[in-house]
Amino acid sequence: MRKRTFPLARVYGLLEPGPVVLVTTERAGRPNVMPMSWHTMMEFEPPLVGCVLSDRNYSFATLKATRECVLNIPTAELAEKVVACGDVSGRRIDKFKACGLSTAPASHVAAPLIAECYANLECKVVDTRMVAKYSFFVLEVVKAWIDPSRKNPRTIHHRGRGVFAVDGRTIKLRTKVK
Amino acid sequence: MRKRTFPLARVYGLLEPGPVVLVTTERAGRPNVMPMSWHTMMEFEPPLVGCVLSDRNYSFATLKATRECVLNIPTAELAEKVVACGDVSGRRIDKFKACGLSTAPASHVAAPLIAECYANLECKVVDTRMVAKYSFFVLEVVKAWIDPSRKNPRTIHHRGRGVFAVDGRTIKLRTKVK
Repeated sequence: MRKRTFPLARVYGLLEPGPVVLVTTERAGRPNVMPMSWHTMMEFEPPLVGCVLSDRNYSFATLKATRECVLNIPTAELAEKVVACGDVSGRRIDKFKACGLSTAPASHVAAPLIAECYANLECKVVDTRMVAKYSFFVLEVVKAWIDPSRKNPRTIHHRGRGVFAVDGRTIKLRTKVK
Repeated sequence: MRKRTFPLARVYGLLEPGPVVLVTTERAGRPNVMPMSWHTMMEFEPPLVGCVLSDRNYSFATLKATRECVLNIPTAELAEKVVACGDVSGRRIDKFKACGLSTAPASHVAAPLIAECYANLECKVVDTRMVAKYSFFVLEVVKAWIDPSRKNPRTIHHRGRGVFAVDGRTIKLRTKVK
């Protein structure tokens, strides 16, 4: 794999813009994947991410049991695959095969990286206090990967019911803020 | 004001894409505002939003004390004002005047709406369990407003240090997913 280590202190810049991510999990040798947009940064370093996985999803039970996942960030050209893997359940089928996505081994967790995604964040669950009431997990990113060949990755942002905004132009302004 | 009521069941479509929002608060007759990107949807209806406001911000203490705020969603033309109001503290100055933003009264909370923003979400704090550890508040959106004259609002998505992605093209795909 051509991916490189990405500094943990810069992970917030990948998630703070609010892209759709593909969450991978693994249990008993079976990997699974689902799209997810309900996430937020909670701390810069170590990077903490809060996210909601509906308890109607097969991935919810796996994440709760294994306490590990990978957040994979897809770009616009993967939009159809993202939607496809949100429309079927991994309970009975191999969603990677069904949706045309490839896995690669992670270094710190059993869940796989998605090769086609330009960034991959290996995560451990660190707080489950809000799982029972809100299905809300707090994750710590323990290892991050980036594809250095992708110079201007355009992520997708879900507006609901299969409508996505794709990143357009970039604005750069002087600021004191991180 | 030319804004109209927006259905609470559709609020997730405004926040799920991850735009920068301007959080307004009010205490002892003094309104304040700060930009915020660390938010996530937590429930469709009633809409619940989780968000992190750093305890270094003046707004943090106000939100904690008053348990009310408004999430105002700016479009790209307001980017400079958004950055400006992140670079100064409301502790001593009137940030609305300093940043060129106008207020309008809300209907359910004391915090004001920002007139220039295309959508405004009046919120009450409903869960503070994670405030002490993560500065993470759970808000319920109790009233939502939209400017019906804005046909294609382009929001901004913060990548860190004053760099923003602006919404570009839209992708629409068939899906079973909400």
